[in-house]
Amino acid sequence: MLQAPSQKALIPFVSVENMMRLVHHIGVETLLEELAGVVEGDFRRWELFDKTPRVASHSREGVIELMPTSDGEIYSFKYVNGHPRNMSHGLQTVTAFGLLAEVSTGYPVLLTEMTLLTALRTAATSAMAARHLARKGARTMALIGNGAQAEFQALAMKAVLGIENVRLYDIDPAATEKTIRNLSDSGLSVTACRSSQVAIEGAEIITTCTADKQFATILTDNMIGAGVHINAIGGDCPGKTELHRDILLRADTFVEYPPQTRIEGEIQQMAPDYPVTELWQVVAGLAPGRRDDNQITLFDSVGFAIEDFSALRYVREKLRGTGFYQEIDIIADPDDPRDLFGMLQRAQG
Amino acid sequence: MLQAPSQKALIPFVSVENMMRLVHHIGVETLLEELAGVVEGDFRRWELFDKTPRVASHSREGVIELMPTSDGEIYSFKYVNGHPRNMSHGLQTVTAFGLLAEVSTGYPVLLTEMTLLTALRTAATSAMAARHLARKGARTMALIGNGAQAEFQALAMKAVLGIENVRLYDIDPAATEKTIRNLSDSGLSVTACRSSQVAIEGAEIITTCTADKQFATILTDNMIGAGVHINAIGGDCPGKTELHRDILLRADTFVEYPPQTRIEGEIQQMAPDYPVTELWQVVAGLAPGRRDDNQITLFDSVGFAIEDFSALRYVREKLRGTGFYQEIDIIADPDDPRDLFGMLQRAQG
Repeated sequence: MLQAPSQKALIPFVSVENMMRLVHHIGVETLLEELAGVVEGDFRRWELFDKTPRVASHSREGVIELMPTSDGEIYSFKYVNGHPRNMSHGLQTVTAFGLLAEVSTGYPVLLTEMTLLTALRTAATSAMAARHLARKGARTMALIGNGAQAEFQALAMKAVLGIENVRLYDIDPAATEKTIRNLSDSGLSVTACRSSQVAIEGAEIITTCTADKQFATILTDNMIGAGVHINAIGGDCPGKTELHRDILLRADTFVEYPPQTRIEGEIQQMAPDYPVTELWQVVAGLAPGRRDDNQITLFDSVGFAIEDFSALRYVREKLRGTGFYQEIDIIADPDDPRDLFGMLQRAQG
Repeated sequence: MLQAPSQKALIPFVSVENMMRLVHHIGVETLLEELAGVVEGDFRRWELFDKTPRVASHSREGVIELMPTSDGEIYSFKYVNGHPRNMSHGLQTVTAFGLLAEVSTGYPVLLTEMTLLTALRTAATSAMAARHLARKGARTMALIGNGAQAEFQALAMKAVLGIENVRLYDIDPAATEKTIRNLSDSGLSVTACRSSQVAIEGAEIITTCTADKQFATILTDNMIGAGVHINAIGGDCPGKTELHRDILLRADTFVEYPPQTRIEGEIQQMAPDYPVTELWQVVAGLAPGRRDDNQITLFDSVGFAIEDFSALRYVREKLRGTGFYQEIDIIADPDDPRDLFGMLQRAQG
């Protein structure tokens, strides 16, 4: 007879369905604001973390990556793919799941979908960065690229910074229409624009999140006025950038983890000694963020494992007392740990 | 209302309970023999695979590792920990789970427990190596270290090589008693021995699988007679070895992936130019295995990602037509892939 697995063998699994329930239970904007705070807290203790560039497996069609990190007590990793052609087959460009484990035992303590959670943590991180880098009192943002990330980005900037106006542009008008529809009850004033040039008019924050896996020029230098904050999240792997390099020559650039960003970010276009500031140093008060209202700031965001760590930790905390998870039996747990075979043998019904 | 997730969003998950059902459905020895064949087949096409040393996160208590690989069509990774002190807290020293994904889309296609499966693949790989490296007609093996791996090792050598006699030694007699009990119906003749020295008497194959995370000397040079095959599976991370280095000076050593084995295997004790043969070259007929009956052969096994790939692929194949899995909803799959937010919004019940 099969015996029920012991408690140690069971870990909470958050399906996509349960993640959606959890998000609505908390409220999207509340979640984005709280998560921005958790990410900021982990950036403040950045030096504690094990940091390693992600482990990427590249293919013609895309990339599969593993992103591990640890603060010495909790270990996390995320599995994430990026396959730009997936969309034309009705599949997600990016899907992800992630795990938390105890460093002291190596035992997993949480497994969860992270496709939704990655969109949420990316938006929360963007907004947290903008809190340090955008002009105070910014009320208008441009969103170039209106794909799967767009609404999350807009709502995070609203929740964390008080953004009121969102100006949209995408090469595909259907993507913009989708974003307008989804934000119709958000309280944001949303405008569809006929070009990037028009979209950025009056915007204090410009977010680029396009998906082509190529060197693209979504923004050119002449488009960027004084004082703008650019939140570049689409240029995130080798061969994929969104900004003309002349912008990088005028902007002060802030990054997550330089060894990774110099390979994957907008700054892959620049010399290895192109100056950058690590965002965590701004958060920790060790480096200045925005210095004046004329400075062009650029958050060259590629996504880093510590942000996933923050998001996983936040979900684990928020799950307590809810029923928004299943318990799955993923760890073999014989009564005598040396008796793995005996456990197998006794399971023979 | 929450809608049921589409087929694309669901992947089969094999719990520990279902893995045990699957193993009994196939039969342990049949599985070990078939799996040895699958591992051998993947060793034969070794050059096709993406190979990278595993990504390890070391702590005072142990290590958590991610082991990815790909043959260009299928991607796999395993999460595995090694925490020697876990046993004293009633936990497994090693737990693991793993995943297969399509390279072309990045979408996962299988998630499974791998604590049991790792024990099975390690034993199958040991037996496959011994088929190439041990003396023909070997009938007796010694098993030094009678922990969680022991019975799997013995049964794989029986199923693949026809081993008839197993001689056991462990510093803890209770571990040996456990192994004898578990093998009582196996058809093997099993003998408990009072020392390693006694256990290896007459053994053509010596398997060492002890768990201490330290430089240990389970076997000394004077114990090793001509013609023996040593299957060293316990020395598998930096600072953890089982054999006296003098044995390595007499033996011909075969390894999985030299860049990893030189860091983690028995040969971490040797100079970087210590000569080794890659086992895949023996399997592919590109290098000799055992040359004569007096040669001492050593398989310095640390476990490599391709073996997990083989095991995962085998499980995926064997699952078809069985009910030994649950479907879990780990991939967000909106109707329009760009409309992740709309999916979330529509889930608000």
